[in-house]
Amino acid sequence: MNPSPITASESKAFVATFELPPTGSGPLDGLCFAVKDLIDIAGWKTACGNPAWRDSHPPAVAHAVCVEQLLRAGARCVGKTVSDEMAFSLLGQNHFYGTPLNPHAPDRVPGGSSSGSASAVACGLVDFALGTDTGGSVRVPAGNCGIPGFRPSHGYISVAGVNPLAPTFDTVGIFAEKPDVLARVANFLLSTEPAAANEPESIYIIRDAFALADAEIQQALMEPVQKLRERFGGRVREISLSDVDGDTTGASFETWRDTYCVLQWAEIKSCLGAWIADSRPDFGPATVSSFALTDQLDRGRIAGAVERRERYFRCLRNFLGPRDLLCMPTAPALPLRLSDPVPDRSAKTSGNTYYPRALSLTSVAGIGRMPQVSLPIAASTDGIPAGLSLLAAQGQDAFLLEVAKDLA
Amino acid sequence: MNPSPITASESKAFVATFELPPTGSGPLDGLCFAVKDLIDIAGWKTACGNPAWRDSHPPAVAHAVCVEQLLRAGARCVGKTVSDEMAFSLLGQNHFYGTPLNPHAPDRVPGGSSSGSASAVACGLVDFALGTDTGGSVRVPAGNCGIPGFRPSHGYISVAGVNPLAPTFDTVGIFAEKPDVLARVANFLLSTEPAAANEPESIYIIRDAFALADAEIQQALMEPVQKLRERFGGRVREISLSDVDGDTTGASFETWRDTYCVLQWAEIKSCLGAWIADSRPDFGPATVSSFALTDQLDRGRIAGAVERRERYFRCLRNFLGPRDLLCMPTAPALPLRLSDPVPDRSAKTSGNTYYPRALSLTSVAGIGRMPQVSLPIAASTDGIPAGLSLLAAQGQDAFLLEVAKDLA
Repeated sequence: MNPSPITASESKAFVATFELPPTGSGPLDGLCFAVKDLIDIAGWKTACGNPAWRDSHPPAVAHAVCVEQLLRAGARCVGKTVSDEMAFSLLGQNHFYGTPLNPHAPDRVPGGSSSGSASAVACGLVDFALGTDTGGSVRVPAGNCGIPGFRPSHGYISVAGVNPLAPTFDTVGIFAEKPDVLARVANFLLSTEPAAANEPESIYIIRDAFALADAEIQQALMEPVQKLRERFGGRVREISLSDVDGDTTGASFETWRDTYCVLQWAEIKSCLGAWIADSRPDFGPATVSSFALTDQLDRGRIAGAVERRERYFRCLRNFLGPRDLLCMPTAPALPLRLSDPVPDRSAKTSGNTYYPRALSLTSVAGIGRMPQVSLPIAASTDGIPAGLSLLAAQGQDAFLLEVAKDLA
Repeated sequence: MNPSPITASESKAFVATFELPPTGSGPLDGLCFAVKDLIDIAGWKTACGNPAWRDSHPPAVAHAVCVEQLLRAGARCVGKTVSDEMAFSLLGQNHFYGTPLNPHAPDRVPGGSSSGSASAVACGLVDFALGTDTGGSVRVPAGNCGIPGFRPSHGYISVAGVNPLAPTFDTVGIFAEKPDVLARVANFLLSTEPAAANEPESIYIIRDAFALADAEIQQALMEPVQKLRERFGGRVREISLSDVDGDTTGASFETWRDTYCVLQWAEIKSCLGAWIADSRPDFGPATVSSFALTDQLDRGRIAGAVERRERYFRCLRNFLGPRDLLCMPTAPALPLRLSDPVPDRSAKTSGNTYYPRALSLTSVAGIGRMPQVSLPIAASTDGIPAGLSLLAAQGQDAFLLEVAKDLA
């Protein structure tokens, strides 16, 4: 099963390895998987990437619902993988648990927060892996590690037994080396039949999403986008996000990102704030500054952000037909070098704009409750992976997965 | 504001009263509300109806997102209300916190688990109140207490700061004495405009749902259903649940209830099982036997239940047009007398079938991710309230609320 010369130990992807046999037989027979350490495995502590959380919480008494589904369908689970602290990061560097290997760019981060799951798949150690994706935590590491990654429509894969971060956006996502395995696992978890159709009606290239990306990302994605144009001709159209939301100020992505961040920070404080205030856990420096944002948020802004979120959601629903796709870069930059300084999550206090640009891109699926797949079909001139993302209308997961299989 | 001679103390609805002023001005100006003690109020412990939970968890550091929304829109919060233990009951009797008053049937239970919120509204002590509804915890007490109650489409009102029970089904619901207040509060929380239309295309009376109910419920609902027929003529049609799911064995409601229960019990164990195993909390006797069900569940049944759930969800989505409604009793029986023995939640070990019948009825909205409103437009010959429920397609909340306003 492991064609790679990289061992589990070398990958630094796992916090624990074990052998959890299937409890039944079905469409996932013979596949092995790993699970982000934010998702319960019975008998194990779910550490959420932080030793203080691990030490202050009892072990799980049951597998998460999504894990039970997979075991029943014939898959076997072989380990728990490293998560960024409390899943609140897009980088893949954990102060306590280390940085899982990005095998296609070993001097760069794997991306996070589902860093270990992405690494385990990219290193060929498992057939697929579960992650969680609130604001990009599956999509970004999939792009960084050069593997397919999938965020489902919100609310269709159970999050019971998965530690909440921001419930309005929390999802369980999937990585797999092979797009057909990705589709098989996702369709099973979603209980949907594989889609009969894989021909998009329109593919909307979001111009201002590409403009947010570094030149080397734009360059890397030029060829795959050109191939989409050759293949689908006039069905590939260019739009800007303002064609969806009707905004005329040119600030669409900034407003969507702000909307997302207000709600994400508000919900993170609701989910984790009491524990932090009460137990004063030891966090790594980047995590300290991330949680500071949730404390600094003016909660008077919540009501307005909910209003905008639902308005944008309806704009997307009205804009996108069942066979339409949006297309954008998965992330605004190549994965950071391990030697680079950690970017500041705060948007306006730093020259480093990685987070605001990344969250602008990832906010679209979050606000739209939409599925998104990151395809590993691009690389920089140095061979560093760059993800190209496709998004479909809410509930059109099976169609999106079929298109992804076809394009890969 | 309190036209009733019943005081807060007499209602036994509150675990705490206070005055939390609005943080803004808007569509809810002048309204006062109470919040189930499963929903965070900053500075207070969220007890979830159980002293052991209260004592083992720190106080909330922020209001729940839904509470922040309400305060910003001009409403003021005046208290926290009694919840059944861990929200895992439909009765409204709390071993530790007592039984809130059902003012329209003082010798009967208010229903639960949002017992205090229903009681506070029915006693005229607040304009509206927030509850939570996983498997009927807003709908059933609304029916019992003779007030309008609303469960929203799943996933459209934030549950951040609300203690999870079974995330696949958890919602924040609303009680209000006046249907126009109910609609105003719900539309604001959902960020939807009031619906322009209030004319149903079809109202499907679910025959086998009525057959599940006691004779006195059937009798009580006869007149309101007859009024629907007079008003809407041929648009009122009779169906059975098998017309939705295509089942030919006559066991539709039993299978839907089983599907719901397997997932609810599985998710409750994932959310609360580790805490229970670790801290061995003191529960009331009925709660002990409810949680025993979550331990006895064969988790190998989860995958099949997810598959059925999604299949039934799609059946409902295909069956119901945007202006169609389902109609059924809110609960299968009049509220229990305070002197009655507590019914056993376990379906097959007891002559008392309250729970299996109630969960059969409430499972439809849960499985369908659909909004449901319980209308207080019926009573037994003794004047005991009986709720008549209408359900709309997922996302058609504003339409459903407008119909409810019109019918009330």
